[in-house]
Amino acid sequence: MNEHSGIVSFVSSGPGDPELLTLRAARLLAEADVVLYDDLASGPVLGLAGPQAQLVSVGKRAGRPSAKQEYVNALLVEHARAGKHVVRLKSGDSGIFGRLEEELTALRAHGIAFRIVPGVPSAMAAAAIAGLPLTRRQTARRLQFVTGADVTGGLPGDQNWAALADPHATTVVFMGQRTFPQMAALLIENGLPPDTPALLAEAVGHPHQRLIRTTVAELGRSLAAEGPSPHPALILYGPLAEGD
Amino acid sequence: MNEHSGIVSFVSSGPGDPELLTLRAARLLAEADVVLYDDLASGPVLGLAGPQAQLVSVGKRAGRPSAKQEYVNALLVEHARAGKHVVRLKSGDSGIFGRLEEELTALRAHGIAFRIVPGVPSAMAAAAIAGLPLTRRQTARRLQFVTGADVTGGLPGDQNWAALADPHATTVVFMGQRTFPQMAALLIENGLPPDTPALLAEAVGHPHQRLIRTTVAELGRSLAAEGPSPHPALILYGPLAEGD
Repeated sequence: MNEHSGIVSFVSSGPGDPELLTLRAARLLAEADVVLYDDLASGPVLGLAGPQAQLVSVGKRAGRPSAKQEYVNALLVEHARAGKHVVRLKSGDSGIFGRLEEELTALRAHGIAFRIVPGVPSAMAAAAIAGLPLTRRQTARRLQFVTGADVTGGLPGDQNWAALADPHATTVVFMGQRTFPQMAALLIENGLPPDTPALLAEAVGHPHQRLIRTTVAELGRSLAAEGPSPHPALILYGPLAEGD
Repeated sequence: MNEHSGIVSFVSSGPGDPELLTLRAARLLAEADVVLYDDLASGPVLGLAGPQAQLVSVGKRAGRPSAKQEYVNALLVEHARAGKHVVRLKSGDSGIFGRLEEELTALRAHGIAFRIVPGVPSAMAAAAIAGLPLTRRQTARRLQFVTGADVTGGLPGDQNWAALADPHATTVVFMGQRTFPQMAALLIENGLPPDTPALLAEAVGHPHQRLIRTTVAELGRSLAAEGPSPHPALILYGPLAEGD
């Protein structure tokens, strides 16, 4: 700690609806001196920051190559060294596909204190809105999360396709709209039934939220034909229960 | 809706620390007429219920055979039919290993309105406290959740062992303390390196919370020798990052 008395709070902002922040996240936002946010975590959530807070967009977008990780790391270190309470907002839960590790490593290297505030993953919010449990006795005893995009935006090549094609699991694909046509083909090749139920959940927790219930094969076809929507979306597939 | 104007809110209470409830969960608890809670979701969280609320323990415990699901279903229906706003508290996120589907089915059968409020899964809270991201670029591109106990309390037999023994995934085992000695042996038999890092997270979010960092083989041995702790615990294993 010595010369610098600042601290960085990694605050999970949930799926986007400000009422899905935790009480702790809301308190830390209200108290923060500086808030660093991505496009994905922006919007009404920032309204919970106090009037004293300096709001800094660091402009990363899911699925795009991020040249800016070092820049974000440097900003975190700089503001904390200046004695500030820095809130680093991360959409969903900060521990899932959010590059948390890179930022933690930078803070540890500089001896800067931090805390991590867990949050509501977007997948849980999407399922809740659809009226779907994510696990089911007997038929969906495993729940898995994967990313559909590596740093270049392409489908990560070294996936465990047998695990992902397991019809007895619920799978959530993050940042998968662009690559799902290719992913669906690989899943079916690896034994997943083409008519496995699928849910596309766009802009969960935002006013223009949209849920589309379909199948794995059909979703692959429609995303190939129509292209991805401009909004961030999650894809869920597996033995999903009947929703409303 | 006709004669009954009540509603059931399935409210995820998070890992146990009341500050990890969402703003929506806190608001619904404050407004509820009746709160149905399990032992796992009890404690300080109930302090957020309003003075008007009738608090009803339905006493289910993780890993024990539950003869009471029909009883819980009947209570939900009865209170909602009496026009009450019923909050059904569920620990962690209600969509994960929480028997949500059985309760939804009962409400749908009776035409009773409900909403689901997603929450912070205990796994995310355990990782946050340990300073661990749950995914890592390259080495942990898949995150999976499984239960270590079926309705009889035994290890579910029909698991996808290849998926669970994948060293490039982070796995979270819910209710797995009793069965982990057997599970660890099966994982290693299926190719998981015995020295894969493991974390036992006991009573996450509660005052007597305890984190033990170890390996899969060693955790299997110690739980076999010492037996499970009396507290609920999560087990995480995989290429976990260096924590504090």
